[in-house]
Amino acid sequence: MGKETKRTDVNELGEFGLIDHLTSSHQPMHPSTLKGIGDDAAVLDYGGKPIVVSTDMLLEGIHFDMMYTPLKHLGYKSVVVNLSDICAMNAIPRQITVSIAISNRFSVEALEELYEGIYTACRNYNVDLIGGDTNSSKKGLVISVTALGTADKQKITYRSGARPGDILCVTGDLGASYLGLQILEREKQIWQSNPGVQPDLEKQTYLIGRQLKPEARTDMIVAFENAGFTPTSMIDISDGLASEVKHLCKESKVGALVEEGLVPIKDEAQLMALKFKLDPITCALSGGEDYELLFTAAEKDLPIVRTLPGISIIGEIKPREEGVQLKTVNEKFHPITAQGWQHGKGE
Amino acid sequence: MGKETKRTDVNELGEFGLIDHLTSSHQPMHPSTLKGIGDDAAVLDYGGKPIVVSTDMLLEGIHFDMMYTPLKHLGYKSVVVNLSDICAMNAIPRQITVSIAISNRFSVEALEELYEGIYTACRNYNVDLIGGDTNSSKKGLVISVTALGTADKQKITYRSGARPGDILCVTGDLGASYLGLQILEREKQIWQSNPGVQPDLEKQTYLIGRQLKPEARTDMIVAFENAGFTPTSMIDISDGLASEVKHLCKESKVGALVEEGLVPIKDEAQLMALKFKLDPITCALSGGEDYELLFTAAEKDLPIVRTLPGISIIGEIKPREEGVQLKTVNEKFHPITAQGWQHGKGE
Repeated sequence: MGKETKRTDVNELGEFGLIDHLTSSHQPMHPSTLKGIGDDAAVLDYGGKPIVVSTDMLLEGIHFDMMYTPLKHLGYKSVVVNLSDICAMNAIPRQITVSIAISNRFSVEALEELYEGIYTACRNYNVDLIGGDTNSSKKGLVISVTALGTADKQKITYRSGARPGDILCVTGDLGASYLGLQILEREKQIWQSNPGVQPDLEKQTYLIGRQLKPEARTDMIVAFENAGFTPTSMIDISDGLASEVKHLCKESKVGALVEEGLVPIKDEAQLMALKFKLDPITCALSGGEDYELLFTAAEKDLPIVRTLPGISIIGEIKPREEGVQLKTVNEKFHPITAQGWQHGKGE
Repeated sequence: MGKETKRTDVNELGEFGLIDHLTSSHQPMHPSTLKGIGDDAAVLDYGGKPIVVSTDMLLEGIHFDMMYTPLKHLGYKSVVVNLSDICAMNAIPRQITVSIAISNRFSVEALEELYEGIYTACRNYNVDLIGGDTNSSKKGLVISVTALGTADKQKITYRSGARPGDILCVTGDLGASYLGLQILEREKQIWQSNPGVQPDLEKQTYLIGRQLKPEARTDMIVAFENAGFTPTSMIDISDGLASEVKHLCKESKVGALVEEGLVPIKDEAQLMALKFKLDPITCALSGGEDYELLFTAAEKDLPIVRTLPGISIIGEIKPREEGVQLKTVNEKFHPITAQGWQHGKGE
């Protein structure tokens, strides 16, 4: 069998390439499947309000390091990253399922901590835990969460709706989560070479908090609703601004111009980036795990967007042939390249 | 912190005890959550037809052994076990999400095999793959599937609806999957001690097929519908008849009498059980992974049930105080004890 003798390494394709490769031939058959694979979440129509469904798996040693991740934070974050995908569809999350696999090095008390984080997220975001299962694993901790939510049909926002002339916006600030991770990783290295040393987290509670306990922007979805605003396209920032802008442009068949000087980066993040000899804009573009929302707005909605709290206009949607570019503070233009799995983050 | 010094081993509680322990304090808040944790699937109401949701995680070395599980079969089975949970609610599955984690020992070609099995299940059961993600794992293969389906609200069948006097029925036959597993395990042992020996699967394609490529009984849900029949309660047989009868009785607050002589066990399974010096009824009661449906019917529906193809009436629902009992072919009565995680099957 020729097929069995060929061996292509999965890293050759990268995560997104791999998913495309494995799923591109599958076409949904049911009229109830409004949107299948290819956005932040799937959209189903069972006759009432549309149902938005998203799922994510987190693995120890790939997505989180037990050395500096408290179990309660981990439980919270594993829910939040899924709720963020529901938000990215301009929908409100309502239910989650959580399946976990644990090795016997985890005690019942450790699991209680994990579930305390899960339930805290349920309370904070007003979602119900409706199912899941608990398995033993040979090694490590695995958490798989599926989130379900809903929105009015005409308000569901896809990655594909951006048009040239739309303004490109982002909620909150970027890069902080990645810098929080750098601090935690540095302290881990120091501790591993000298376990007597106390960790120096430099009181960087904001940066570390963004990494260990991110939030989903359901508040912005409510703000959009209250303002009578519907984005033309949206995606959540899990892999970094660069990757998400590229996704959005690819699905919308457009280009974009991002202005470096307009990308929101907090002072703490700016300073910490310099300390790590990193370029702050690189942290924002490629860092990931901010779980902010990147969205586009029709030009006519600019007055409304300006009234929304904590929104930054970072650029503009361009025709496809102009590509996806960054205009630096020195007025130079660089093509933006996506960073995905190859980036070594496993996601 | 007293809490952190205490360490309770997860095996002390068992799988079902652990899930109860971790989830019993969580009460659904949304009116859209008709049924949360505690049945084969959750039931949601988003205004149209109810949505039935179930999720399961399968882990290498726990739920399957790559030594004798072809990847295509594994993909198929990982979908089927979830569709079976949807069937257990008297619902028809429509969509699935599939998340996988793989170590780099798997090639793209291996993943293609896995997805070929997943897509074959999608085609056979007319379900859409609508989402999921692909992750790297440090070790082993993890597959997490969420299935969604629907049914008319008045037809959704819970574990809790059995009443004394109801007849207890099962679809298909039991014990074969467990015996298929015994054959595969035996050949693995022989091969490990002498890799030159060819496996002797004794042409047991039925038994081995039941283990490696089980089917979900969507056909029975259609047959129920066509006959105008709705069970009073239902559960799918993943952990063995004993465990499922106990679950059903617990949730329905009833007892049951199962007659050994009425439990459907195929001749191939009877013979293979004897070969392995196992009691055939034990294989049916505790073996598991048959993915048949255990259901109860109101006495008035007995004439309809008799017309349904491949159904066995195996006993009767009794008042709670009579307990859950097995009447042997020798007219002796034994209490049925559930077997869950302690059974060493990890599920």
